Amino acid sequence: MTVSHSAFTLEKTDGDARAGILRTRHGDVPTPVFMPVGTQAAVKSLAPDELRTSGARIILANAYHCYLRPGAEIIERAGGLHGFMSWDRAILTDSGGFQVFSLSKLSRVDDAGYHFASHLDGTRHTFTPESVVALQEALGSDIAMVLDDVAPPDADRDRVADAARRTLGWAERARRAKTRGDQLTFAIVQGATFEDVRRANGRDLVSLDFPGYAIGGLWLGEERASSIAMTRATCDELPAEKPRYLMGVGTPEDLLAGIEAGVDMFDCVYPTRCARHALALTSVGRLNLRNARFADDFTPLDPDCSCAACADFTRAYLAHCMRAGEMLGARLLSLHNITFMIRLAAGARDAILAGRFADYRAERVARFSEGADASRPERT
Amino acid sequence: MTVSHSAFTLEKTDGDARAGILRTRHGDVPTPVFMPVGTQAAVKSLAPDELRTSGARIILANAYHCYLRPGAEIIERAGGLHGFMSWDRAILTDSGGFQVFSLSKLSRVDDAGYHFASHLDGTRHTFTPESVVALQEALGSDIAMVLDDVAPPDADRDRVADAARRTLGWAERARRAKTRGDQLTFAIVQGATFEDVRRANGRDLVSLDFPGYAIGGLWLGEERASSIAMTRATCDELPAEKPRYLMGVGTPEDLLAGIEAGVDMFDCVYPTRCARHALALTSVGRLNLRNARFADDFTPLDPDCSCAACADFTRAYLAHCMRAGEMLGARLLSLHNITFMIRLAAGARDAILAGRFADYRAERVARFSEGADASRPERT
Repeated sequence: MTVSHSAFTLEKTDGDARAGILRTRHGDVPTPVFMPVGTQAAVKSLAPDELRTSGARIILANAYHCYLRPGAEIIERAGGLHGFMSWDRAILTDSGGFQVFSLSKLSRVDDAGYHFASHLDGTRHTFTPESVVALQEALGSDIAMVLDDVAPPDADRDRVADAARRTLGWAERARRAKTRGDQLTFAIVQGATFEDVRRANGRDLVSLDFPGYAIGGLWLGEERASSIAMTRATCDELPAEKPRYLMGVGTPEDLLAGIEAGVDMFDCVYPTRCARHALALTSVGRLNLRNARFADDFTPLDPDCSCAACADFTRAYLAHCMRAGEMLGARLLSLHNITFMIRLAAGARDAILAGRFADYRAERVARFSEGADASRPERT
Repeated sequence: MTVSHSAFTLEKTDGDARAGILRTRHGDVPTPVFMPVGTQAAVKSLAPDELRTSGARIILANAYHCYLRPGAEIIERAGGLHGFMSWDRAILTDSGGFQVFSLSKLSRVDDAGYHFASHLDGTRHTFTPESVVALQEALGSDIAMVLDDVAPPDADRDRVADAARRTLGWAERARRAKTRGDQLTFAIVQGATFEDVRRANGRDLVSLDFPGYAIGGLWLGEERASSIAMTRATCDELPAEKPRYLMGVGTPEDLLAGIEAGVDMFDCVYPTRCARHALALTSVGRLNLRNARFADDFTPLDPDCSCAACADFTRAYLAHCMRAGEMLGARLLSLHNITFMIRLAAGARDAILAGRFADYRAERVARFSEGADASRPERT
């Protein structure tokens, strides 16, 4: 295994918040960064040129989904995910542990790996730490995740400790199985909300010297305060010189909380899922475009945004498209929401570099909360 | 009413096929032309910049749909359809007669107009020739259609003759009701497949001196040979110096047959509807992307096309998106299929100007048919 210690440069800290540069074979990624999610090798409704314009430097794809459909062989023959999707910037692939846990039926986990039935057609499959390394090497992502064991949200301490132990063992096996020197492999820290288990798992994984670390098993239904405390505790155990990725997070508020806790990378389906439900993330808060007041609102969606949805259309038009079931509406809102999240993270980076992250966070959260009250997003 | 006789210039004929220029207040439209359909003020899944790149000079919207949702007032306050949709080229609005006939419940037609219940919420409405003129003037389209009475496909001669008589009376009333001098109004020739009724209706409408004429009430389930014969018969009655629009047509083969019969303008949901069913219209025929052979076909969708779907992606990727239910697939296929239809019409224009339309048509139909056999589109 080739471990490049220079994959990340920490440029500046501001409190625990960090600004850095992640280096991949498909370009540098300034951090903190939000990564749009293209689970099935497509970011919902968006074309690569739009993602580039939105400022995306790195996107996510899911090894579990790509393995089941279209299959690793097709993607490998297409020149990997980059060739298949026509995306020339960085790609991170999730290993599939969480997807087996959340999507598949009849899944069984043992020290060998995951045994599961496809959520598409019920066929039986096994993922081992080694097979998932090989899978992601075939997919050709810039960053691969090790297979991890995610304990269910209601798991007791023994089950969580067992999952952490298994995740550590799988990380060692993944490390040995790796053959590609041009792909960064990140380990995933588990431990649910048992702080001692989580810290110990973090320390053990750090001793294996991965080029980056992810924080897994959080934001699965536990109290938000606990999610944030666990994020902080995990960051405590992680080396300053390695990138930190908080998996599956999140809302604008949670992204800023994660950055404050010392996280560098984020991904979430939240912006595209919101878009499909007519919910816009804007500098003035969440706007529910199904609200009657937008029917004749001829102003831009977000006055602070220059994406195509904001530059070319009005709230009234976007609201019409959503109500009329026109695909163009969800598409334009997806573009805007992803642009919003990417720029929110980029703004945090600028603030950290300028030593004013606390103010940036407070301002953004305050404006977001005000708007959220006004538009009553809970009605969706 | 201001009637501009110079809205159309016939440049060249080749047999009965015609090349011309239609002048609108949003630019010139070289004909023959295919008009993408944006029924609800949005062309399914596509943004205006993509339509421009596809070569679209004129698109369609539907007065019936826009009236019901979002309502004419919203669109008028947005600056008309052009402002609302952010489209700066020409727009033609259909009057809604056909939509009342095909979509609404409890519709009743009498000499006053249509009385119908909204297909959205069951509310009762009446369309008169005058109200539909006012509606389209509020929408601000470049070309408005008169309200027409469309007889059902199984109607007998009396019902068809009655519809033609009513359509003529309504055209006269529409003419008198018109107040905008910058909007072209086209009359619609009815008569189903009763050639004498249709010819008489055409002659009567021509005497009213509209700036353009549409051929309505065809391609509704009758034999294709009859549709084409009726198109020819109608064109026979229409003045050479006015544009001719064949409504709701059609497939590539039907578009070419219409051009051969002397038609200048076409619209159809066919290309976007095909796209949503994974059917691509290409220079080598219809390709059903659900066919297994495309799963590992890493060639461009259409070797003769330079649209973004063909330039940036492979058949394998598009097939994957369609199978995986990724909206991006239908979007890219829509872009391609619309580009294909627009370029097919543009190619016909070039061929007419060069005096080789018959060869062009024969070549295109032959290539299309070959490919269609190979890909078995009937499986969709």
